[in-house]
Amino acid sequence: MEINSITCQENPTRSCIGCVCDSLKSMFEKLKSKVMEIAKQTRKIGEDDPRRIVHAIKVGLALTFVSLFYYVRPLYNGFGQAGMWAILTVVVVFEFSVGGTLSKSINRGCATLIAGALGVGAECLAKLCGEKGQPFVLGVLVFLLAAIATFTRFFPKVKQRYDYGVTIFILTFSLVAVSGSQAANLQIAYQRLSTILIGGATCMIISIFVCPVWAGQDLHNLIAANVEKLATFLEGFGDELFSSLGDESSVVPCKDDKEKTYLQVYKSVLNSKATEESLANFAWWEVGHGRFKFHHPWKQYLKIGVLVRECACHIEVLNGCINSKPQAASEFQLKIHSTCKNMSMECSKVLKELSFAIKNMTFPSAAAKIHMQNSIATADEFKSILMENSSLSTKTDVQELMSVLVTASVLIDIIKCVEKISVSVDELSQKAGFRQPKSLEKQQQTLLHRGIVKPVNDHVVLEISETLEETVENKKLRSGIVKLVDDHISGGNDHIVIKINETLGDSERSRPIEV
Amino acid sequence: MEINSITCQENPTRSCIGCVCDSLKSMFEKLKSKVMEIAKQTRKIGEDDPRRIVHAIKVGLALTFVSLFYYVRPLYNGFGQAGMWAILTVVVVFEFSVGGTLSKSINRGCATLIAGALGVGAECLAKLCGEKGQPFVLGVLVFLLAAIATFTRFFPKVKQRYDYGVTIFILTFSLVAVSGSQAANLQIAYQRLSTILIGGATCMIISIFVCPVWAGQDLHNLIAANVEKLATFLEGFGDELFSSLGDESSVVPCKDDKEKTYLQVYKSVLNSKATEESLANFAWWEVGHGRFKFHHPWKQYLKIGVLVRECACHIEVLNGCINSKPQAASEFQLKIHSTCKNMSMECSKVLKELSFAIKNMTFPSAAAKIHMQNSIATADEFKSILMENSSLSTKTDVQELMSVLVTASVLIDIIKCVEKISVSVDELSQKAGFRQPKSLEKQQQTLLHRGIVKPVNDHVVLEISETLEETVENKKLRSGIVKLVDDHISGGNDHIVIKINETLGDSERSRPIEV
Repeated sequence: MEINSITCQENPTRSCIGCVCDSLKSMFEKLKSKVMEIAKQTRKIGEDDPRRIVHAIKVGLALTFVSLFYYVRPLYNGFGQAGMWAILTVVVVFEFSVGGTLSKSINRGCATLIAGALGVGAECLAKLCGEKGQPFVLGVLVFLLAAIATFTRFFPKVKQRYDYGVTIFILTFSLVAVSGSQAANLQIAYQRLSTILIGGATCMIISIFVCPVWAGQDLHNLIAANVEKLATFLEGFGDELFSSLGDESSVVPCKDDKEKTYLQVYKSVLNSKATEESLANFAWWEVGHGRFKFHHPWKQYLKIGVLVRECACHIEVLNGCINSKPQAASEFQLKIHSTCKNMSMECSKVLKELSFAIKNMTFPSAAAKIHMQNSIATADEFKSILMENSSLSTKTDVQELMSVLVTASVLIDIIKCVEKISVSVDELSQKAGFRQPKSLEKQQQTLLHRGIVKPVNDHVVLEISETLEETVENKKLRSGIVKLVDDHISGGNDHIVIKINETLGDSERSRPIEV
Repeated sequence: MEINSITCQENPTRSCIGCVCDSLKSMFEKLKSKVMEIAKQTRKIGEDDPRRIVHAIKVGLALTFVSLFYYVRPLYNGFGQAGMWAILTVVVVFEFSVGGTLSKSINRGCATLIAGALGVGAECLAKLCGEKGQPFVLGVLVFLLAAIATFTRFFPKVKQRYDYGVTIFILTFSLVAVSGSQAANLQIAYQRLSTILIGGATCMIISIFVCPVWAGQDLHNLIAANVEKLATFLEGFGDELFSSLGDESSVVPCKDDKEKTYLQVYKSVLNSKATEESLANFAWWEVGHGRFKFHHPWKQYLKIGVLVRECACHIEVLNGCINSKPQAASEFQLKIHSTCKNMSMECSKVLKELSFAIKNMTFPSAAAKIHMQNSIATADEFKSILMENSSLSTKTDVQELMSVLVTASVLIDIIKCVEKISVSVDELSQKAGFRQPKSLEKQQQTLLHRGIVKPVNDHVVLEISETLEETVENKKLRSGIVKLVDDHISGGNDHIVIKINETLGDSERSRPIEV
């Protein structure tokens, strides 16, 4: 518009048509940018979840299919105007997930059947009262049933599962009872019911057999993803603590701001309650599919969801602790700081293992249990550090001490949450009949890969908590350890202590080996 | 059943009919208890919100009213079978809140109009393609429009406001386009549209004029209630801290377990997101009512809601600190403990004032600001206590110190949250044009009532942060202070310092008066 007015001032003789053209042009540009924006958004929505595009095509398909009842003459003669109920059913019943479609189809079918029968009954009753009494009796019956049925929708269980059914019940009852006073009824009722069944069946078949979207699978994935989000945060937080310690020898480089946004990822976990509940509700209706049986323990997923959100709440508080870096830390503070890092990292590993187990539908691996024990042990270690330093005789800056103490305290709470999540995932794997993880050998290999390297003062302690028999496998393991040790020595560490705890044996012996 | 079998053994000659009677009796008893349970639940649901009963009656009323189109012959002759669309509309469109009903009615009306016009257009287009091409063209058009419209439902804005409209759009377009190939169309379209309008208008009128339930009012109340719940928790927490201090002179008696359940009340705040959002969405559709204008800033309520939930998250963590009572507390710990109590209490008072302001649609009172300043001052006081004791030369139990430090740290975070909530409520009161609180005099009186009495060491400091001119009102105030002072001296306190800060003036002078 600015350019436009400048042009007009420079060319005062210019005709008004030119101005109109310019303003049209700017309008066109605006429209173009708006269209581009919508196109961009459309593309993003499609790319985020391509199943959405498939769903849109499926709905189009189902609708075109039931339209056949209108196009094809013989079918039309059979059902007449009632064919529209098939279209209506498809439009209203077809949902994104199989569970949603089944829930609405079954609700609609059953409600139509029951309400239809009741409606015919009401009509018969009304006929007994003579022609004058009939509309009055029907009116009262419609009022009563509509009011009562509407009230039942406030019952939580009805609201959750049968809300749509109750709506259709009221609708069908009113229609049948009322239209009965005017037209031949049974024929219409039969036509409607059969067309509704055809519509519902079309939706269910297309929904189940053409690229199905299972709400149960979505819930399963959502819970696994949420657990992983917490793990990602705790891992990032651990790194952050390390970088704030100013530990140059740290393997993990200080992440830049873009990567730090991963620390914000848990926020979506806090708001996932509604999604989880609706998915669990739909999943309840779904038939068995893949490795999910008909009565898969969906409620257990909700339980895990609650615990995950509780943990996310603690993480929200922890998030506020990131910026509080100690300036000149005492040895005591450094110790606590390093314990915090270990707690955070171990919790992260437990959560990763749990998320992995849920994703692959296996029992949580032994590694998850070991990391859990490690994190509890680290929490105990923290307590013992406090005990050792119970009387702070040296000068300590309380203000700086506070920040590490708060971090540690929240982390201990998080460990408790993670423990609960772990128990809950165990329950889930039992109830849902998950597989056992593949083999012990593989576990041992992953154990090696997941070994914790704790820098305590100027030592590096490498703990492997698993029975090690003299097998070929263990020789490999040992050579792996030696390689790790070499790497760390070249990294500038002087002393390395390797403790091998036989936790699976009867006694817990410790065999420190100086390399 | 057990009694039954005993009877049979004692009377082996007893006939089978007796057994059947007994089992019928037990079945009847079970049924009776089930019915009693449902009756109890029904009563509870009705008592929790009597508007639910009214709503059920309203739906019955609307439905009976539109049934008139079937009963009354002249009307029936005018609309014929299309009268059923009025019933359908009422059943589907009538929602609990006015906003819900308006949203669905308007969506349905507009979508029917647009889709009807498009459908007629599609039919004309199809006719150009000859009798053989017609079903094919219509089929393709239905498929395309249904697929595109279904996809638009994934756009967040469409999903939020026009989801129902899109459904009705697909439905009407399919019906009109398809049925057009069979019957005289315009007449039917006109009948349907007018019956839908009659149904929708009936719903809207009954919904607005018969005991209306405004979603906006509900949202308003919900936010005020949530803020108050946080206040209740913090007040309870403050009391709890005092009782854990073992302070016998505390005015508030130690609450029993039943009363402690109030500390759990904030949990519902954490899960209120979905409710808030749906209420705000419905409220957007509502016409002006009472003191809510047409474009009341509903989004601001959602902002406050987010902050309140954030605060509730911190409270969740604080809740874990309640059980950690200091055993043998040092003077330093006692100081911090008492500061924590003050922070908690002041925050609670701020939140109560804010909740009160929202409820009454007034600007937050000056008392809210003063309590806010007090809580920030207490947080600063805590920091200065830390500074004073920065080097703990005496023996301190770090483990016990930790619990108080964590409590204090979380409370400081809560103060930050409360500050944000306070700013947000201020914004709301500006945007929504709330009233000013009644008069300054009344404020001063409440100020006196709400004066904070802080025990610092063996002094009692009474701070009043307000300009005090020599008016009759202030003389009363002063005599009130003297009475308070007397009470505290008789309570065993030796020294009392009264600071009067003129915070409303240009400079902040402090006039301590030794009584």
